[in-house]
Amino acid sequence: MQKLLDRVQAIDSLLCVGLDPVGDDAAVAQRLREVIAQTAPYAAAFKPNLAFFLSRTDGVELLKSTISAVPDDIPVILDGKFGDIANTADHYARFAYDVLGADGVTVNPYLGDDAIRPFARPGKLVFSLAKTSNQPAHGLQDAALAHGGTVADCAAAIARRLDEEIADSTIGLVVGATDPAALARLRAACPRQWFLVPGIGAQGGDLAAVLAAGRRTDGRGLLINASRSIWEAADAGAAARVFQAQR
Amino acid sequence: MQKLLDRVQAIDSLLCVGLDPVGDDAAVAQRLREVIAQTAPYAAAFKPNLAFFLSRTDGVELLKSTISAVPDDIPVILDGKFGDIANTADHYARFAYDVLGADGVTVNPYLGDDAIRPFARPGKLVFSLAKTSNQPAHGLQDAALAHGGTVADCAAAIARRLDEEIADSTIGLVVGATDPAALARLRAACPRQWFLVPGIGAQGGDLAAVLAAGRRTDGRGLLINASRSIWEAADAGAAARVFQAQR
Repeated sequence: MQKLLDRVQAIDSLLCVGLDPVGDDAAVAQRLREVIAQTAPYAAAFKPNLAFFLSRTDGVELLKSTISAVPDDIPVILDGKFGDIANTADHYARFAYDVLGADGVTVNPYLGDDAIRPFARPGKLVFSLAKTSNQPAHGLQDAALAHGGTVADCAAAIARRLDEEIADSTIGLVVGATDPAALARLRAACPRQWFLVPGIGAQGGDLAAVLAAGRRTDGRGLLINASRSIWEAADAGAAARVFQAQR
Repeated sequence: MQKLLDRVQAIDSLLCVGLDPVGDDAAVAQRLREVIAQTAPYAAAFKPNLAFFLSRTDGVELLKSTISAVPDDIPVILDGKFGDIANTADHYARFAYDVLGADGVTVNPYLGDDAIRPFARPGKLVFSLAKTSNQPAHGLQDAALAHGGTVADCAAAIARRLDEEIADSTIGLVVGATDPAALARLRAACPRQWFLVPGIGAQGGDLAAVLAAGRRTDGRGLLINASRSIWEAADAGAAARVFQAQR
């Protein structure tokens, strides 16, 4: 956690550079190195997306070398949305932290507390899904609970409780950029937690609205993810710099 | 799906052999081959647990060779509990089906419809979490909704709707053995879907109660998973046979 705070302080950036590599294997390895090198000066964190690595040949090796290529002072959050019972979650934590060397993960709260705890090692960053950036027809996250609030609010409350309860670890939330009203509501309910916010750019989220709704009173507490808009830019560094300048 | 029906019919078994390999790398490769060979006569399906492979060296290669070692007429369900937005879910589907050759997957419904659809390819088996076998303190799955039912009921309804809507694919549910009342309630709500039931054995679920609560009226529609009780048995084949005999 100190690594993230130090980094955010050092470069005054909220940008999390998402790494969702598309393209053929040779081109992808090259492009990953380029994007990391060019965006590192503006990146508070990097977020490789596990699925985009597993779907290709030698994906775990590529993921490992990608994480190694990130400068040591920039935290890497493995976006795996892990969600399983405790003894299985423990194996995912070993994969993320010990095999790959990541500094954090994303997790899915559907299985509750014991699916999240194994990831809460000292110094690690855990972001638990609350409100995602997609717009599913079903409304599970938006469903109203009998005792008040929505399913997303209940998921956020679980993460908040764990964040307060477990010393030396950070349990934040994933809250999509595409619903600023939900973002503002969750910020009011969780004034001190870190929020990882996907959905800017290709998915249509508005940066100014996210900043207004999601910042803590100290102006921090947000990591705003950009993936496709940086990956597809002719100059990834310029795309990251523009992003950082709008903070 | 036809593969599962044929297999269940052929050997009259509801047993899904879970493969959650623990132990050092050399011993594990050997034990996986043994367990598959010894339990195959009694197995309606195999279910490798992704986490237990990823946490070890060359885990994806071991997973690939494990899936290849399963006889062609027995379906393999990759237990990854995948849950991400559609373009990411599509990469997990490629990993499970194209890279590894699995016949099915488990998925997490927290992100809704579009997180499940990419897995619903023709002939594939998708099991979406409804009520899991752990006993988390938080109660997310058990939370009552304002419009009736629980979060787990809502998740089951999403899967049921997709199962009816998408031709040629099978969207079943994951329902833990540890809460037979919830199992009975979900069976009443979803009379035709396949249920994958973990939590027998090491986790404390009772087989007779599961059979009474979970079977369809045609006596089928259940896959009952056993992992640790078979993996740790001196004779894995005998453990699987006893299990099948109690159906």
